Amino acid sequence: MNQNLLIWDLWLPLVINFCLSIFVYCMTVRLIPKLTDKFLKANLFGIDVNKKSRNKVPEAFGVVVGCIYLLALFFFIPVPFGRTFISDDNFPHHEFVELIAAMLSICCMLLLGFADDVLDLAWRYKLLFPSVASLPILMVYFVNFNSTIIMVPLPARAWLGAASVNLGMFYYLYMLLTTVFCTNAINILAGVNGLEAGQALVIACSVTVFNFIELAGPLYKTHQFSLYLMLPFIAATAALLKHNWYPSKVFVGDTFCYFAGMTFAAVGILGHFSKTMMLFFVPQIFNFVYSVPQLFHFVPCPRHRMPRLNKAGLLEASRFQVSTQNMPFLSRFILKVFSLFGLIDRQDESKMAQVNNMTLINLILIWCGPMREDKLTMALLLVQVSCSCIAFMIRYPLASYFYDVPVM
Amino acid sequence: MNQNLLIWDLWLPLVINFCLSIFVYCMTVRLIPKLTDKFLKANLFGIDVNKKSRNKVPEAFGVVVGCIYLLALFFFIPVPFGRTFISDDNFPHHEFVELIAAMLSICCMLLLGFADDVLDLAWRYKLLFPSVASLPILMVYFVNFNSTIIMVPLPARAWLGAASVNLGMFYYLYMLLTTVFCTNAINILAGVNGLEAGQALVIACSVTVFNFIELAGPLYKTHQFSLYLMLPFIAATAALLKHNWYPSKVFVGDTFCYFAGMTFAAVGILGHFSKTMMLFFVPQIFNFVYSVPQLFHFVPCPRHRMPRLNKAGLLEASRFQVSTQNMPFLSRFILKVFSLFGLIDRQDESKMAQVNNMTLINLILIWCGPMREDKLTMALLLVQVSCSCIAFMIRYPLASYFYDVPVM
Repeated sequence: MNQNLLIWDLWLPLVINFCLSIFVYCMTVRLIPKLTDKFLKANLFGIDVNKKSRNKVPEAFGVVVGCIYLLALFFFIPVPFGRTFISDDNFPHHEFVELIAAMLSICCMLLLGFADDVLDLAWRYKLLFPSVASLPILMVYFVNFNSTIIMVPLPARAWLGAASVNLGMFYYLYMLLTTVFCTNAINILAGVNGLEAGQALVIACSVTVFNFIELAGPLYKTHQFSLYLMLPFIAATAALLKHNWYPSKVFVGDTFCYFAGMTFAAVGILGHFSKTMMLFFVPQIFNFVYSVPQLFHFVPCPRHRMPRLNKAGLLEASRFQVSTQNMPFLSRFILKVFSLFGLIDRQDESKMAQVNNMTLINLILIWCGPMREDKLTMALLLVQVSCSCIAFMIRYPLASYFYDVPVM
Repeated sequence: MNQNLLIWDLWLPLVINFCLSIFVYCMTVRLIPKLTDKFLKANLFGIDVNKKSRNKVPEAFGVVVGCIYLLALFFFIPVPFGRTFISDDNFPHHEFVELIAAMLSICCMLLLGFADDVLDLAWRYKLLFPSVASLPILMVYFVNFNSTIIMVPLPARAWLGAASVNLGMFYYLYMLLTTVFCTNAINILAGVNGLEAGQALVIACSVTVFNFIELAGPLYKTHQFSLYLMLPFIAATAALLKHNWYPSKVFVGDTFCYFAGMTFAAVGILGHFSKTMMLFFVPQIFNFVYSVPQLFHFVPCPRHRMPRLNKAGLLEASRFQVSTQNMPFLSRFILKVFSLFGLIDRQDESKMAQVNNMTLINLILIWCGPMREDKLTMALLLVQVSCSCIAFMIRYPLASYFYDVPVM
């Protein structure tokens, strides 16, 4: 790359973005405490059930974080295109529309998330909203790339008789499902102070590291685009985490989970690394699969599955009751398999069994024993960080065994 | 124009947009009553002060209307570009980004409006929010057109020595102020059942008629773009008006006023007819100028300036008190000038004078006498319709005396 181009096109926008991110952090950190009263007055609060005090904690602060993030990006819009204004190059409309469409999807998800927090909408909307909000980015993907070909891993090529497969419409379905998954995944792995913002921060940092590594590669443009969205996101989320950390002074709300999920989905899809992105979501994927028996009511599912506060002030796994007599075959089978792998803790009583609710949070509590809430969040974030490390190992040294060209 | 092109490019997207608009109307009409309980439960309600019953009326339904409108537009995104998918033409990224940027500005304004309704934010945000939310459309205007030249009217040309003037940066400032004005104008002319939605509907219909006339002209593309946004807006607003009409079952909230204002601003700016758009806002401009002495506290301004219910169940003009002794020169001058033009009704008592609050609503009540709320809304909408008719007269027969080329 030309030395001049390298500075103007690659690093200057990133440096400006970084400065803007510092501004986002400072503004968010200062604005959150100023708005708590407004939220309480607007009846937007939750009760922190894992505290003895059971204080009202203002809820849905994702909307504040998301708005500051969007406003910062609005001011950033002209920056990546600065050089084309003063040179005679054609204006890169296709790059411009990517940025605008990503913001539109994020803004739409933020609006729907906040509406959900305020109005407490039905469950079906949690699947409908992200599907609709993702349409602008899918449309831009279709117009700008429309690449629906995936590489087949080397060992499978002889079997399939091809080095690549064109998934066509199914690739769009996959991207749509990715969006729905991302927007809900963080929401499902939640319920402990600082966990939602913490996991989003770890994922965002992992994506950022990945983007910086790939800046040296041939697809540097798309990774630069991803960084534009990720750096201010890290700043906004870090500021939120500061106030959301144990003991939480504010709650993030569904708004934040939707906002974060859509940002990751937009970055993964338009940055062409939706598969690598999924590697950073392994704890969420595990938590979702682990929760399936309860979510689909194959085994009983109580209204809340959060850990509960014991008398020592520590959190311990919450449990559901199941009758050991007349247990349907499917439930019996699931409990058998799960206990074979040490994934559940079953305490049999006369006619009933007490089994822990199937979430990653409860699993950690069963494996490590009861602990204080902040220790639990730390443990869960440690799992997230470890999974990101493993993801990098899969993505770099291991992928070369399965693919002869770099994968996305 | 080629016959084939005419059908494919011009009319087919409009017909699809029209069908989508019918769907928007049906869906909005049905969804609003279903959501009233949710809004009341979320503490989003207002008291209808112009009714004896003083019922709780759910507030901020602009968010429902706006979300349905946006979702419909999301599904519409691919339609105008359908032909380029099956032909070998280059994809018109510049048109694509206009649509996406307009939606981004509208979505952002909807989010900020809803946040304002829920959290009841300070006054300064009412100026800040639209300024920021308009950045995407201004950026697209800069990239796609960057035409900051305005035609000078014929009589002024000899004096200025030029047929056109390049306003440069000031044109962008003008567009920014237009956006701030549009988003707040409807909000200021409000307080009577059905008025906000009604005036927005009249303006939208006027814009639509104008666009259809101009479809035959050389700039048909931009007017077609405007229609894409206007037809579903008319549908959504008509549905809202059905429930917001006297006696209101729902209130529209700041959300709707912001949403409507930003939609008009986006259409006016990206459709290149921001000056014609202002002609349709004459009642709002009059109301704003008329309100200035109170808004800037040159004369006293009570907290609410809405008309009040008299004992006969009719609405009459609300009033403010002003001391006739020691009245500052500026107040005395303003009241003198206004009463010279018959714009205020002043009732002098011993040391005080009772003057009507300076809004178009109160002015109508003074000119026509007390009337029932729905009659008042009808009268105000009639004013709006008359002003639109005058606007068309200014725009078409009159403009040819002042300009030798069509103006925008």
